[in-house]
Amino acid sequence: MNLVQEFTLTAALKPPLPIGDGPIGTRVYYEVAGGEIVGDRIRGKLLGGGEWALIGPDGFLRLDVRLQVETHDGAYLYIQYFGLLELNEAVQSALADGTGTEYGDQYFFTNPRIETGDERYAWVNTTFFIGEGRMLPNLGVGYRVCRPA
Amino acid sequence: MNLVQEFTLTAALKPPLPIGDGPIGTRVYYEVAGGEIVGDRIRGKLLGGGEWALIGPDGFLRLDVRLQVETHDGAYLYIQYFGLLELNEAVQSALADGTGTEYGDQYFFTNPRIETGDERYAWVNTTFFIGEGRMLPNLGVGYRVCRPA
Amino acid sequence: MNLVQEFTLTAALKPPLPIGDGPIGTRVYYEVAGGEIVGDRIRGKLLGGGEWALIGPDGFLRLDVRLQVETHDGAYLYIQYFGLLELNEAVQSALADGTGTEYGDQYFFTNPRIETGDERYAWVNTTFFIGEGRMLPNLGVGYRVCRPA
Amino acid sequence: MNLVQEFTLTAALKPPLPIGDGPIGTRVYYEVAGGEIVGDRIRGKLLGGGEWALIGPDGFLRLDVRLQVETHDGAYLYIQYFGLLELNEAVQSALADGTGTEYGDQYFFTNPRIETGDERYAWVNTTFFIGEGRMLPNLGVGYRVCRPA
Repeated sequence: MNLVQEFTLTAALKPPLPIGDGPIGTRVYYEVAGGEIVGDRIRGKLLGGGEWALIGPDGFLRLDVRLQVETHDGAYLYIQYFGLLELNEAVQSALADGTGTEYGDQYFFTNPRIETGDERYAWVNTTFFIGEGRMLPNLGVGYRVCRPA
Repeated sequence: MNLVQEFTLTAALKPPLPIGDGPIGTRVYYEVAGGEIVGDRIRGKLLGGGEWALIGPDGFLRLDVRLQVETHDGAYLYIQYFGLLELNEAVQSALADGTGTEYGDQYFFTNPRIETGDERYAWVNTTFFIGEGRMLPNLGVGYRVCRPA
Repeated sequence: MNLVQEFTLTAALKPPLPIGDGPIGTRVYYEVAGGEIVGDRIRGKLLGGGEWALIGPDGFLRLDVRLQVETHDGAYLYIQYFGLLELNEAVQSALADGTGTEYGDQYFFTNPRIETGDERYAWVNTTFFIGEGRMLPNLGVGYRVCRPA
Repeated sequence: MNLVQEFTLTAALKPPLPIGDGPIGTRVYYEVAGGEIVGDRIRGKLLGGGEWALIGPDGFLRLDVRLQVETHDGAYLYIQYFGLLELNEAVQSALADGTGTEYGDQYFFTNPRIETGDERYAWVNTTFFIGEGRMLPNLGVGYRVCRPA
C-alpha cells in the first residue's frame, strides 16, 4: 500500500480537564482552542472540537477526537478519529514543558473520518485517511494526514 | 420500573454549523455555549460540549452529545448520550423562532452515561440515567434526568 | 415519565470467551445461541448476536450488545444497546451455577436502539426503549423492554 | 510513513440479512462463518463475528465489523474495525456471482483495533493496524493488514 500526503492538521489545545479514573480508564479532556488544515485540495480553520482521551495502564493514550472545520471557501466539515499515542519520555516532556516533538519521536497514529455535504468536497466522505502525529509547542498536536495512493 | 428524578440539565446552544448531507444523514453541529445541572446530590456548570446531530429522512433528529461539567465542589464529569428528538411542529417552531416548548410537546429522550474519577461522585459511573427533553428559549435544551428507583 | 412494556427479550448465551485484561478493562465475549422477543406489536426469534462485555474495577459489567431478529412475519431487525449490570452476589451465583435471578435482584438496565427498513415495523426506528434485565437459568438473560407512554 | 505487512485475514460470510433502509442508511448484516489470520507473529482461526454494513447513497459500503479469534496457542483476541468499501462493478459482480477480486480492484480499507489480555500478544493492544481488502470467492473477504514500520 502506497500512501500520499493529503493535508496537515494542527490543533492548539487548552489545558486538560482531569475527569479522572473512571470505569474504562483515566479520562482527560482537551478542548481544541484553534488550528488549521493545510493541503493542496483542502484548507481551512478549526472552528472547535475536543479530544476525549483515555490513558491506559499500558502507557498509551487512546484518542477519541471530534473537530469542526470551515474551509477557506465556506464548506463545513466534521472530522472524527480514534488513535493511539505512546506516552513515552518525549511526549511526557512535551506535555510537561510545553515543547514539541518530531514525527517519529513517538508512536502516534490516527484514522480520521470526514463528513461533509458540500459537493466541492464530496471526496472526503469516501476517502480513507491515516494520520501520523507529533506534539507541537505550547500544548498542541500536529498531523500529516495521508491516504492510499 | 419506577423512575425518580436525579437532576435537571440545561444547555444553551450556539447557532448550528450545517455540515450537510453526508454518508449517514444530514449532519448539523451545535456547540454548547453554557448551562448547568441542578439536583439534590449533584450540581454544577457546563464547561462546554457539543451536539453532533443527524437529521433523518423520518423526521427525527438523532443526538450524539458530549458534555463536560464542573460541579460546585470541584469535580469534573464527562457526560455522553445518544437520543431521539422528533422534529415536529412545536420543535421546528422553537428552532425557528427561538422559543421554548414544554415536556411532552415532543418525543425527546436520551440515555446519559456519566464518568468521573472523583470519589464523591463515584455513584454516577454506575447509575443508569434517562433524560426527557424540551426546547428552551433562545436555542437551548432542557432535560429532566431520572434513574430507576 | 411513564413507561409501558413493549416486549420481553430472552437470549441464551454460549460459554464466554475470556479475551482478558485489555486497554479499557476486562473483556469477555458471549455469543448469543438463540432467543426470542415477545410482545403485542412485535414478536420474533433471534438469528444471532453477541455481547462484548467489559468488567470494570467497580464491580459492574458494561454491556455492548448487537442482535439480529427475524419477526414472525419476515421482517429483519438490528438491535444494539449499551447497558449496566451490577455483578453482585445474585448475579455471580447465577453465572457460576447456571441459575436465574428475578427482576430487582440486580441493577441491570439497557437502552436498546432498533433499526429496520420494514415498513410494518417503522415505529421501532423512532422509539426510545429501556430494558430491565435479569439472569435466566443455563446462562441466559431476559429483559422486559419498555418505552415512554 | 512506511508500512509493513503483519498478517492476512480471511473471512467467509453467510448470506446477508437485509435489515433494510433505516434511519442512517441501508443496513445489511453478514455473519462470519469462519476464517483465519496468518502472520509471522500471529496466527489463528476466527471463532465468529459479524459485519454490520451501511450502504450509502454515494455507492460506498461502510463496514462496522467485530471478530473473535483464537490463536494457535490459545489466546483470545477481539478485533473491531470500521472501513470503507467502494461498491464498484468489480465488487458488485463478486457479490452477485460469488467470485473474487484482486487487491486494487476496489477501494477497500479498514483500521483494525485488537484487544487481548494475553501477555504473549500484548503488542496488539498498542499497535495501529491498516487493512486493505478484496473479495474472496464464495462470499468472503480477505485483507492484508499492515502497521507502521
